[in-house]
Amino acid sequence: MSLIVQKFGGTSVADPERMRAVADQIGRTLRRGNQVVVVISAMGKETDDLLRLAADVSTTRPGREMDMLITAGERKAMALLSMALHDIGVRATSFTGSQAGFITDSSHTNAKILEVRPERVREALEAGEVPVVGGSQGVSTDLNVTFLGRGGSDTTAVALAHALHAEVCELYTDVSGVFTTDPRIVDRARKIDHISFDELLEMTASGCPKPAMRSVEYARTHGVDLHVRSAFTWETGTLVTKEDPDMEDAIISAVTHDTDEAKVRFAGVPDHPGIAGRLFRALASEGINVDMIVQNTSEDGHTDITFTVPHSEASLADETCRQLIGELGAKDVSVDEQIASVSVIGAGMKSNPGVAAKVFETLAANDINIEMISTSAIRISCVVREEQVDQAVQALHEAFGLHAGA
Amino acid sequence: MSLIVQKFGGTSVADPERMRAVADQIGRTLRRGNQVVVVISAMGKETDDLLRLAADVSTTRPGREMDMLITAGERKAMALLSMALHDIGVRATSFTGSQAGFITDSSHTNAKILEVRPERVREALEAGEVPVVGGSQGVSTDLNVTFLGRGGSDTTAVALAHALHAEVCELYTDVSGVFTTDPRIVDRARKIDHISFDELLEMTASGCPKPAMRSVEYARTHGVDLHVRSAFTWETGTLVTKEDPDMEDAIISAVTHDTDEAKVRFAGVPDHPGIAGRLFRALASEGINVDMIVQNTSEDGHTDITFTVPHSEASLADETCRQLIGELGAKDVSVDEQIASVSVIGAGMKSNPGVAAKVFETLAANDINIEMISTSAIRISCVVREEQVDQAVQALHEAFGLHAGA
Repeated sequence: MSLIVQKFGGTSVADPERMRAVADQIGRTLRRGNQVVVVISAMGKETDDLLRLAADVSTTRPGREMDMLITAGERKAMALLSMALHDIGVRATSFTGSQAGFITDSSHTNAKILEVRPERVREALEAGEVPVVGGSQGVSTDLNVTFLGRGGSDTTAVALAHALHAEVCELYTDVSGVFTTDPRIVDRARKIDHISFDELLEMTASGCPKPAMRSVEYARTHGVDLHVRSAFTWETGTLVTKEDPDMEDAIISAVTHDTDEAKVRFAGVPDHPGIAGRLFRALASEGINVDMIVQNTSEDGHTDITFTVPHSEASLADETCRQLIGELGAKDVSVDEQIASVSVIGAGMKSNPGVAAKVFETLAANDINIEMISTSAIRISCVVREEQVDQAVQALHEAFGLHAGA
Repeated sequence: MSLIVQKFGGTSVADPERMRAVADQIGRTLRRGNQVVVVISAMGKETDDLLRLAADVSTTRPGREMDMLITAGERKAMALLSMALHDIGVRATSFTGSQAGFITDSSHTNAKILEVRPERVREALEAGEVPVVGGSQGVSTDLNVTFLGRGGSDTTAVALAHALHAEVCELYTDVSGVFTTDPRIVDRARKIDHISFDELLEMTASGCPKPAMRSVEYARTHGVDLHVRSAFTWETGTLVTKEDPDMEDAIISAVTHDTDEAKVRFAGVPDHPGIAGRLFRALASEGINVDMIVQNTSEDGHTDITFTVPHSEASLADETCRQLIGELGAKDVSVDEQIASVSVIGAGMKSNPGVAAKVFETLAANDINIEMISTSAIRISCVVREEQVDQAVQALHEAFGLHAGA
């Protein structure tokens, strides 16, 4: 008998019909002889609705009260799913984050899990019940209700799977798994059967939207196997595990892209120690989420530092840099919003030096100019013109033989 | 400094605008030097919506899960009201029934309160905060979330007022108090200022819809004074207390005064039905707290309507009236801030017709001119010049033999 944690996202439980479909899937899993613990998100767009309501009522929106408000969404969903399970003869018991033993810090709206003590969840399992746990919530050490942030239900599921020594944590979503690239751009994109945590982390960081990065990091640290799969077709999805010894052959597993990026160039700064530290400390103080960072080779004792940020933070980054022009002796700051990044991900890349060359050659063969390059052990990312990014994704997906049936 | 429990029903907090109006009323209560504990119901028809959702998902609807679902409604409302309070500079902290110390039995959907241990509510008060407690909810002795049933927020408020030794429990609703009969049937129905628990229980049992009978029973058992009042006009409602055995003898119990009043005179309006209703609806929509209202005897088919409001609302009342001059065919609006009211209070007044005459004679003998008179069954109020109010209080206090040792 295996213990499986099943997490269902908002679109999976958006309406009463979907609630019943999810209950049926849980019932099927039980009939196959498994024990199931369920983690559930708020229904459909409810979290957005609650945020809008808060904005209509208040301009200050203190974090403690926001968390009390937002967590009402998962509470509704978990109670309704438990009822739907009772209807098909499954004894189910809902638990809030607090009841499920999620102890967090007091960083309201974005709390961190300190400890999971799932005593009541264990007792329910031992009594033959299905525990249905509200995702993304907990109780702080000073006994206030906390919210783990958007996408926190994935983290709840992974943390619970770890605490309960579950065999696997199934993350149900509205796509059937992790793909070699965005199927809306490349119609021959292929679902990946098996991928490593590191690769999935790089994919998430470079534009692949699911699952929440934080939950993958948690799973990687604690060795919790993930299964990313569809709550609509119920077919087998993508298994995410620790790097497999025989993965060395699998050179390239995916091509990702991100169009929500702007490029900021801090030009002509003196090439001596401390400049970059000062710059990125200032950006961090403003809460700016810097992604790629590139510093060009020095010319005449001066250098350019270029980095990318989300579109929404571009003007703040621009302003922050401009205030440093005098202090750091820079020549100019420029922002370019018409860019996008394309990334090639693969665990075997580090021992295959030809990969980078093949990426650059492929883009060149398609007349796509590369404006920035950034690499990690398992990723190569290039910044290109925004209007060329679909073409870049298609070319790279084909060049690395990722097309379905290839 | 008095401690007041204020309970707001669903229609009182139906939308963001009403949330802010309720926050303003709490702010006004604090500014008068009181401590406030708030109990809140789910917004508008939310409880009905949640029941409908449950019916769409499930036919079995187990009680434990129904309670988890339904209590999400109050949770949303209490968080939103706390945010609205923060917006007007009031430090507020929301508490679930469990956090507020409501221990109940396990009769889901209709749980009974076993004990109230409001430690966290007390701590919040001591820290100078306004606790905002979710109504109609608690935690059972086996640590499950429970719902006290429809109308349970009144009971929450009364139980909390008792546990905290509050001076009064104010039950805000969509009518302005307890009436002599249903005002929709008899347009001369009169709101009752002060009534005994026994009388109100009899009225509730025979069709008077508010407040929830269970809460009145609780208040009667534990001697918690209730104030049933409107969350729309904010006018004084009905006080419900234990019947005083020697009420008949005690003719006059107190002389009070209020210097925070301004007199607004809406002069020369046609003396026909609907004028006063239109005027005071407009004032109410602006959140103006009207106290005394006097309509003079009609002369030549025209009349004056005079009323008092707090100083802080005088200019808004003036402006609101001026906008109605054309529509209501009035001659003029004037505001006089140099007034004060003096009142004589006494339960035995109704059987002693000489009381009013004695009030007027006493003031005349002291050369104090009466500008407005307003009476109730147990109160006679007069508006006088502000500089004469101390003299008026002294004279009446002596005339009615209230002096110590008299």
